[in-house]
Amino acid sequence: MTQYKYILEEKELPTHWYNIIADMKTPPPPYRHPVTLQPMKPEDLVPVFPQALIEQEASRERWIEIPDEVRDVLKMWRPSPLYRAARWEKALDTPAKIYYKWEGVSPPGSHKPNTAVAQAYYAKQEGLEGFATETGAGQWGSALCFATQLFGLKCKVFMVAISYHQKPYRRIAMETWGGDVVPSPSSETKAGRDILAVDPETSGSLGIAISEAIEYAVTHDGFKYSLGSVVNFVLLHQTVIGLEARKQMEMAGDYPDILIGCAGGGSNAAGLIYPFLRDKLIGEKPNLRAIFVESAACPSMTRGIYAYDWGDTAKTGPVAKMHTVGHGFIPAPVHAGGLRYHGMAPSICRLLEDGIVEARAYHQNQVFDAALSFAQAEGFIVAPETAHAIRAVYDEAMACKESGESKVILFNCSGHGHFDLAAYDAYHRWELPDYEFEEEKIQKALAELPQVAE
Amino acid sequence: MTQYKYILEEKELPTHWYNIIADMKTPPPPYRHPVTLQPMKPEDLVPVFPQALIEQEASRERWIEIPDEVRDVLKMWRPSPLYRAARWEKALDTPAKIYYKWEGVSPPGSHKPNTAVAQAYYAKQEGLEGFATETGAGQWGSALCFATQLFGLKCKVFMVAISYHQKPYRRIAMETWGGDVVPSPSSETKAGRDILAVDPETSGSLGIAISEAIEYAVTHDGFKYSLGSVVNFVLLHQTVIGLEARKQMEMAGDYPDILIGCAGGGSNAAGLIYPFLRDKLIGEKPNLRAIFVESAACPSMTRGIYAYDWGDTAKTGPVAKMHTVGHGFIPAPVHAGGLRYHGMAPSICRLLEDGIVEARAYHQNQVFDAALSFAQAEGFIVAPETAHAIRAVYDEAMACKESGESKVILFNCSGHGHFDLAAYDAYHRWELPDYEFEEEKIQKALAELPQVAE
Repeated sequence: MTQYKYILEEKELPTHWYNIIADMKTPPPPYRHPVTLQPMKPEDLVPVFPQALIEQEASRERWIEIPDEVRDVLKMWRPSPLYRAARWEKALDTPAKIYYKWEGVSPPGSHKPNTAVAQAYYAKQEGLEGFATETGAGQWGSALCFATQLFGLKCKVFMVAISYHQKPYRRIAMETWGGDVVPSPSSETKAGRDILAVDPETSGSLGIAISEAIEYAVTHDGFKYSLGSVVNFVLLHQTVIGLEARKQMEMAGDYPDILIGCAGGGSNAAGLIYPFLRDKLIGEKPNLRAIFVESAACPSMTRGIYAYDWGDTAKTGPVAKMHTVGHGFIPAPVHAGGLRYHGMAPSICRLLEDGIVEARAYHQNQVFDAALSFAQAEGFIVAPETAHAIRAVYDEAMACKESGESKVILFNCSGHGHFDLAAYDAYHRWELPDYEFEEEKIQKALAELPQVAE
Repeated sequence: MTQYKYILEEKELPTHWYNIIADMKTPPPPYRHPVTLQPMKPEDLVPVFPQALIEQEASRERWIEIPDEVRDVLKMWRPSPLYRAARWEKALDTPAKIYYKWEGVSPPGSHKPNTAVAQAYYAKQEGLEGFATETGAGQWGSALCFATQLFGLKCKVFMVAISYHQKPYRRIAMETWGGDVVPSPSSETKAGRDILAVDPETSGSLGIAISEAIEYAVTHDGFKYSLGSVVNFVLLHQTVIGLEARKQMEMAGDYPDILIGCAGGGSNAAGLIYPFLRDKLIGEKPNLRAIFVESAACPSMTRGIYAYDWGDTAKTGPVAKMHTVGHGFIPAPVHAGGLRYHGMAPSICRLLEDGIVEARAYHQNQVFDAALSFAQAEGFIVAPETAHAIRAVYDEAMACKESGESKVILFNCSGHGHFDLAAYDAYHRWELPDYEFEEEKIQKALAELPQVAE
């Protein structure tokens, strides 16, 4: 009989994270200061992030030990299962062999707690009282509340107002895990009050929420700011996904030809891909393909430029060299809220610029076509973000059908869609809009990039 | 380091279901015909259920083979993990050792597909076109749509109107798995039209939805009716839970002193408990305790009587001897919709009557107190039904703390609460009502029981 799942024992949970920076010929350049635009030193980040994370951000060490206390929490759901999508292969009638890592088994339902737990641990070690963070639809915020709760820390979440009011379920989950969630803009920060003074009825944005969270963190003793994607240390923490998957693919007796993940800031895709990509960087697997899949509504890698830009709309965070559609670009309201970030993780962008990895973008309806086909064969109803990866897998599997090749495809099934069913409903009813590429809006946003002397 | 999860390989999935009827000194008496009240013969059930299930319903065989095709689908998520609740034990400061079987890993998120898959398989074998069924909040309906989809069958779901409109997420999940869901009462059946003629604005009830589903099944060629709890064959299919748990408890080096499950019709609790209870029935574990936990809003085991009653409000289904608060009793609108059934599985009732198992009932707020404590320690946010089991575990763990005993408690964590977060929200806001025992209403309903000559 077919084997569907490849499962590791708890004792096989990785002991070290993999830091791809150590193997990159050209690592991403240092961050620039948001005001002076000069190269930042690690100490410039001290008011914002815990010390241990600042060290990890700048580290060139290849392997960084995972503290036992972090591994102990990760064991609540890790190692996560690796699935062979045998039913979906059959439904697609493809000779491709499709595998996926299923991150929806974590209590918050996605890969996000892999870094939330590590960040909460280091915050506790540093004697902090809590974290402040922003969240859009709530996937990151719920992961951080889950993690801080376990370490006895507080969590202040600024949730984009429109999501706070329209999508109450993730807010309730955050409160169940002890989080203090307020709609953003709020009256608790100057940044929020300034916005409310101008537009009391604003629906908020991720850019505003980030500004509020950073302000809250730097103005409250014992609080620091927590970020759920983009930066090196977050991608580092996510490499447990790929490190486990390597062992599981060995159990299955296969090695991937193509790796696929959806990418907003890029952490879940990098988490799966980097531990395999090392084989390409050191010359052992020169033909390994890795595809980062973004939303056509926010096409930083496929339509943006590789340049320095602010990480947040309010220009309070570091300036990074990355593929960007401009910090002022407000993407169309696609359901994949996690893919609506204007930039991309600097390490991914460097690899993309060097031709080591690939990127592609999809529109909503083609993405849900694939997610529906997946749900009907494999059972799992995935998040709209994850559905982007699934569309790319679908296309690669169809290419195999065309060519007759039996390629091995591995993708990261990063989270369930239990709180996103309204998107499926719109799709079923033919009410899901596809948005045109917004070239003019992107060009306008790109004109506002900082002028950084290299 | 602590081990949290005990995991079985796919090949260790049970090959046979355990039929407790074979080991009961006094099995439950045969069903009675809904109109004549005479003992029913298996052939009387032919218009309603697939033949193979009718045979299982009446079987006295101890072990019934699980078809390979059913095992192949169950492997999509089974064997499910057994957890040691080490963090919760610590939070409760109890010497008790708490284990739980986690059924929330199935794609529909509960134990329900364990029987839905088997029923869909037998329907396909019999050459049926599809199933009709009823659902309240949608847990059963979504499991059946998931299962029928995989076997290429249709699924017609009559969903209680108020849930259809107020809780769209499970309806959307059913549609994603190809189900045809209509609000009940509907204009598609005579039963539905009759109700609508009298009250076009009715919010519907499970009793009406059952009547519509049965009518639809018997009046549509190629359709039969599917039921998600109460009857012997459903409990039989759920015994994979307990059979797996036995192996996993062996891995953990423990044997339970107390088994606990929530019970509406009783299938998830019986699924966990029966394979262990056999040791008590055959005299090997005389002190083994098993606790079935119901809602105080629908206290069939703790306040009802043991008597013959119709299985459905409209008196179209079989009459069974069971603990009942009366087929006409409409329970208060507690969030645990799955515990709002007026009766209980006949085999559980027989065991309860014979003093072999125990029952208890809880009110909503005490149940959510325990579920919150569980979510904050173990991470998982459980369904309101499951929360009833968790309250009983909490009380037993506290009794151990009092007595200093280190008892081993095993409970069935039957499903996640991702679609039930409104209940948690009401709890957080102190807006969750506790309903008084409705003695007078129960007595009135019990006066309407059928007069069956034994």
